[in-house]
Amino acid sequence: MPKVIKTKTEFEGRVLEEYVVVEGEGLSAWDAHVPLQFVGKKTTRVDGPERVTGKALYTFDVQLPGMLYGKILRSPHPHARIKSINTQRAEQLPGVRAVLSHQNTPKISFRRQTFLFDEVVRYVGDEVACVIADDEEIAQDALELIEVEYEILPFVLDPEEALQPWAPRLYPDGNLLGGQPELYQRGDIERGFAQADVIVERTFRTQCALHNCMEPHGSVALWEGDSLTVWDSTQHIFGVREGLARLLGLPLHRVRVIKKYMGGGFGSKNNLGKYTVIAALGAKMTGRPVKIVLDRHEENLATGNRPASVQHVKIGARRDGTLTALELKAIVTAGAYCLWPPSLGGPARELYACSNVKTEQYTVFTNTGPLSAFRAPGYVEGTFAVESLMDELAQELQMDPIELRLKNYTEIDQTTGRPYSTKGLREAYERGAKLFGWHEARTPPAALLSRRHAPKLRGVGMASQIWSGNGMPPAYALVKLNPDGTATVITGTQDIGTGTKTVLAQIAAEELGFPIEKIAIEIGDTQLGLYAPLSAGSMTVASVGPAVRVAAHEARQQLLDVAAQVLEVPRDSLTIADGLFRSPALQKPVAVHEVLKNLENFMIIGRGAREPNPEDVAVNTFGAQFAEVTVDVETGEVKVERIVAVHDSGRVINPLTLSSQIEGGIIQGLGYALYEQRVVDRNTGIVLNDNLENYKLPTALDIPEIVFEMIDRPDFRANNLGAKGVGEPPIIPTAAAIANAVANALGVRIYELPITREKILKALGKV
Amino acid sequence: MPKVIKTKTEFEGRVLEEYVVVEGEGLSAWDAHVPLQFVGKKTTRVDGPERVTGKALYTFDVQLPGMLYGKILRSPHPHARIKSINTQRAEQLPGVRAVLSHQNTPKISFRRQTFLFDEVVRYVGDEVACVIADDEEIAQDALELIEVEYEILPFVLDPEEALQPWAPRLYPDGNLLGGQPELYQRGDIERGFAQADVIVERTFRTQCALHNCMEPHGSVALWEGDSLTVWDSTQHIFGVREGLARLLGLPLHRVRVIKKYMGGGFGSKNNLGKYTVIAALGAKMTGRPVKIVLDRHEENLATGNRPASVQHVKIGARRDGTLTALELKAIVTAGAYCLWPPSLGGPARELYACSNVKTEQYTVFTNTGPLSAFRAPGYVEGTFAVESLMDELAQELQMDPIELRLKNYTEIDQTTGRPYSTKGLREAYERGAKLFGWHEARTPPAALLSRRHAPKLRGVGMASQIWSGNGMPPAYALVKLNPDGTATVITGTQDIGTGTKTVLAQIAAEELGFPIEKIAIEIGDTQLGLYAPLSAGSMTVASVGPAVRVAAHEARQQLLDVAAQVLEVPRDSLTIADGLFRSPALQKPVAVHEVLKNLENFMIIGRGAREPNPEDVAVNTFGAQFAEVTVDVETGEVKVERIVAVHDSGRVINPLTLSSQIEGGIIQGLGYALYEQRVVDRNTGIVLNDNLENYKLPTALDIPEIVFEMIDRPDFRANNLGAKGVGEPPIIPTAAAIANAVANALGVRIYELPITREKILKALGKV
Repeated sequence: MPKVIKTKTEFEGRVLEEYVVVEGEGLSAWDAHVPLQFVGKKTTRVDGPERVTGKALYTFDVQLPGMLYGKILRSPHPHARIKSINTQRAEQLPGVRAVLSHQNTPKISFRRQTFLFDEVVRYVGDEVACVIADDEEIAQDALELIEVEYEILPFVLDPEEALQPWAPRLYPDGNLLGGQPELYQRGDIERGFAQADVIVERTFRTQCALHNCMEPHGSVALWEGDSLTVWDSTQHIFGVREGLARLLGLPLHRVRVIKKYMGGGFGSKNNLGKYTVIAALGAKMTGRPVKIVLDRHEENLATGNRPASVQHVKIGARRDGTLTALELKAIVTAGAYCLWPPSLGGPARELYACSNVKTEQYTVFTNTGPLSAFRAPGYVEGTFAVESLMDELAQELQMDPIELRLKNYTEIDQTTGRPYSTKGLREAYERGAKLFGWHEARTPPAALLSRRHAPKLRGVGMASQIWSGNGMPPAYALVKLNPDGTATVITGTQDIGTGTKTVLAQIAAEELGFPIEKIAIEIGDTQLGLYAPLSAGSMTVASVGPAVRVAAHEARQQLLDVAAQVLEVPRDSLTIADGLFRSPALQKPVAVHEVLKNLENFMIIGRGAREPNPEDVAVNTFGAQFAEVTVDVETGEVKVERIVAVHDSGRVINPLTLSSQIEGGIIQGLGYALYEQRVVDRNTGIVLNDNLENYKLPTALDIPEIVFEMIDRPDFRANNLGAKGVGEPPIIPTAAAIANAVANALGVRIYELPITREKILKALGKV
Repeated sequence: MPKVIKTKTEFEGRVLEEYVVVEGEGLSAWDAHVPLQFVGKKTTRVDGPERVTGKALYTFDVQLPGMLYGKILRSPHPHARIKSINTQRAEQLPGVRAVLSHQNTPKISFRRQTFLFDEVVRYVGDEVACVIADDEEIAQDALELIEVEYEILPFVLDPEEALQPWAPRLYPDGNLLGGQPELYQRGDIERGFAQADVIVERTFRTQCALHNCMEPHGSVALWEGDSLTVWDSTQHIFGVREGLARLLGLPLHRVRVIKKYMGGGFGSKNNLGKYTVIAALGAKMTGRPVKIVLDRHEENLATGNRPASVQHVKIGARRDGTLTALELKAIVTAGAYCLWPPSLGGPARELYACSNVKTEQYTVFTNTGPLSAFRAPGYVEGTFAVESLMDELAQELQMDPIELRLKNYTEIDQTTGRPYSTKGLREAYERGAKLFGWHEARTPPAALLSRRHAPKLRGVGMASQIWSGNGMPPAYALVKLNPDGTATVITGTQDIGTGTKTVLAQIAAEELGFPIEKIAIEIGDTQLGLYAPLSAGSMTVASVGPAVRVAAHEARQQLLDVAAQVLEVPRDSLTIADGLFRSPALQKPVAVHEVLKNLENFMIIGRGAREPNPEDVAVNTFGAQFAEVTVDVETGEVKVERIVAVHDSGRVINPLTLSSQIEGGIIQGLGYALYEQRVVDRNTGIVLNDNLENYKLPTALDIPEIVFEMIDRPDFRANNLGAKGVGEPPIIPTAAAIANAVANALGVRIYELPITREKILKALGKV
């Protein structure tokens, strides 16, 4: 029986009542000494062959009879009011079926204070209208026939400028999200700094980064009567369902969202996109299915980005390294719309034992593309600032950076006072340092100056990582057993490219005692699947995996019940492994299908719910990364020679998919540290590199040697797997570790990402 | 906990062990006096709008990227051995991607003693090869380029001929299915006839009828890695899954069969078709999805038919009408393959109290298109014969036909000795007679002769119906509740056009207490749905409906648990109706979504299984039909003026979809009685009317006034709905009732269907 718990929480001075439903069986995680057959073993992707042979059907591949194609007209101005739209010429182009704009669509609220088709456009790329036509080419041609009369408005691109009272306003109530900064305080920050022997204080700047998932955003919408089906490249099918239902005034059972395969998502696919709602409206209007898939330019302009930030960080410490105060003030560029407000202060609040902490964040609207979640939102930026400054503090105190960190190590979550369920960060420092040869490699700062004129400078640096990653309820799964001893797992999660299906198959195989090839995983369908949360926040495995395990467990119990009766042996004597029943009472093992095949189509169906999270401990993930760089003093080129990473995300389910996550995260962190940066023309607000030619991503030649190890220790308080997420942790400390290594190489620090050749040469005094 | 019961049954002298799994909650059917809100109410189809506006996606509408089209080469000979197939010229036609035949495909066993691509063809239309091409036209053209060298074999078309020792053999072990007739005996048939005062004995002949569902058979096959997805127009998605897995050597969890909408199925879509397997092989071979949809000719040649029959029936009775013996010998034309052996002896064994009964059936292979199930297989044919002869017996005994039937009425299933759970046949006779005005309309036979020269003769007749229709386990369903108070029902059945989705929505709405528009029904997917039996045998509602009710009940229980906690009222005080919680403890009703919306995405999931059938009673459906005809003595034309039908199928769930079934069944029975007949050229074995032009179906002008009533009394022993099937009952007695009316009009009887003008004129001595 589901139990409802009413809790009261305080939020911004208001007392909020919240209901929590507690359900799910109390399975405990497999003991560390229990030998496991699938969990913890390198397992190739269950859907690898169809992915690499082009058979997998992505949203782009959906074809429907009579399907039309949509192309979106986007604003050429960073800020303007639409005075009129004349769609007549476009509508007359043969093959054009409809032109949608604010003139002929319902006024649908979208995001903060705005509408699906707004009469004000707020960045170059903002949605103005959409042509629905027989093919994409006609739609594209028709865009040029739409005549829009704009009233040009003053615009602002820089967040610091946008905070000025004289700045052009994007919204009537100003450019600051929420009207006030987001503030966090504990202890007494003034007293903390007063107690300090040493204070370091710097301003860090990070750039705007673009997601560039391999598969662009896109949707196909189909109406059947009053039921809407949408194929969508999304990280949250149930969220898209909820959003579509709300915006279009539909009940949830009439909205079906499907996402079978997906070519990556780093947070920009967390949200319902305008193109999805437009496709649904266009399909309704034309009476035919509509496909809208964004191209790379649109992808880079309109789907969200990692926001640029300015962070002013100040740390006070005693001579022995004990932190007395930590303050971080951040200004974050929301762009025109804030899709997913990040919290840059997280690492400052959580990484170290410190009684006096203050973080303050201004999230500021500007006439640029919208902010969205991007792999570890806020923590990548915040870690760069805090861990850079900790490095500087260590230098100031003439301490080893690891020593300084261990000095301020804590086993207690500083924000809640709860002990961590497990924390392997100390071990990560120690194992990482050993693997890297930290103590040997670390050149004393004094030695640096003499090398300043060497053609290449070498440096090493390290940084720490903290992140959540335990997932949460609600998440549900079913496990169906077929008469031939195969099983189908059904849940409503989505595999965004990380290998979710493979990991869930391992879990089900382990719990059932079936060979893994006998498991099929069905996900990505709101109508036929069960609720699962968004695939973000490193929480898919830790949210959905436990539900799958419970469902498999329930199916296994039923299977044992039935087998004991059919085989006429005591139930307690039976075990299942390799798809075989074994019992001392049996002469030889009996295959599962031998029992089930006689039972006609009797179908065992196990149901599982994610259990509640513990309330007495904090569950987090931790890690440390070490970087070695060489810097060419002539060209300013930084080459990352190697990265060593040691992470603690609890139990490792699949070392193979995990290695993709770790390596992918590090590589993305490296791109962020050295290359990636959206460039906006200051005079026009136009993005100059909304493409893969000019937006520089790391290529194979830029990839360093990557060595990583996992602590791989089950967290028994986290969930019934003992596993936590690993999607975000590896990107978090990379830029900081590289920046620290560059500082170590140069002897001077660069406070602004990306660390380009120009900045290096400037720091070296060469330009 | 599922309970396994081992039972022993005797079959053909062998003792068979059978395992039965007993599960499912013991919900009892709603009491007759309980007012119901949805069940029993006329309810328009929940998917009506999309069906009639062309939005519904049928198998034919499935489009996939790179999809190819298949066309099948069919034998021009009724019996031949393929000496060689030269596909070279076909393969060279631009756009042709593959040509499949026995030469390049695995030898896959299919049906009795044959193969998917056999080297012997056994009827005109038998599968020889298949071209897979870029479009249907190219594939069609390429068929003509395939050179097949046949060795012509002798053939046999007539089943009586085929039983002769000198007849050409279709199979090495002869032309008789099973090598011996199917025999049933009770009592002592000889002694029974010896006790008779009157014996009537006649030979009846029925024709071969074609299904002609609106949507032809067809499949689309898609491989993704080693997983096969097939969209199929089938009455049994789980059966197609099982067959594909078995024939292609795939595990069940790698085969997904989908059928969303379907344009009718009368039994010929019960089975896995060759085209489906060929599409799957072709897709594998070409690496691209393949669609094969049969055209009307293929549909009529190759997908099965209602077999022609010869029935010799003999009835003995005492002077008072008491039956003493009943014997039926039937010869049934299997055609080249027997897809679904019917039992023509059913009505003879079951309709009347009679201690001495013998039925014997010879199912005989001939070089014609295959036999398949067709709406009430065997019972339509058998009822025509038995109920015609009962009419003749009544005349012989100078009894009213109803009086004779009531004289031999039984409350005990004659084949098992079990009492019927309920039997409303007596009431059907009585209400039908009253509605029809039977006693007034029935002209005494003596009066007929004087009317022989009138331009039109009028006659009335009636007949009885018995059929199973209770359905059975296993069948499963899930009911998911969404946060907005809507619900999604998931099961693995298929709506073959009968309104299954509507009826299941009524059941779920009733049990949940939700408005019916808040229910979505998701069916037709083996991978995401739960097992349900084939949609045939009038058993869909009675098999799947109870599982849906249990699932809804379980969801309701959870919902009440949660609501009691959230609303802080005693659980027992709460009721749900109209989507509102009511309780004396509440000031006003609270909507379901008001409770659920605060629980985040907590999802209530109810699971239901069909309960076992009772073992101590027989559960059947019953009915009686009355026909009035006029016969034009000049042209021989029979016009059915009206049909009155009274049926007992337990509780009526939806009077509206039920009326479609009753009227559709009667119309199809009328076509069978008067018009429909496959014509095969005796010299070539070619079907001369494999189309809708020459195969005569009743049109709107042929439809009589149809008046029907249902007994509509819940059968509490049948299942938790009290409802039984209604798909087949209405077709069963129609031809018999019409034939009896024609005999009543003419004064002479026609023993062979269809009752054509030619046969009438012959009977009247006019030709």
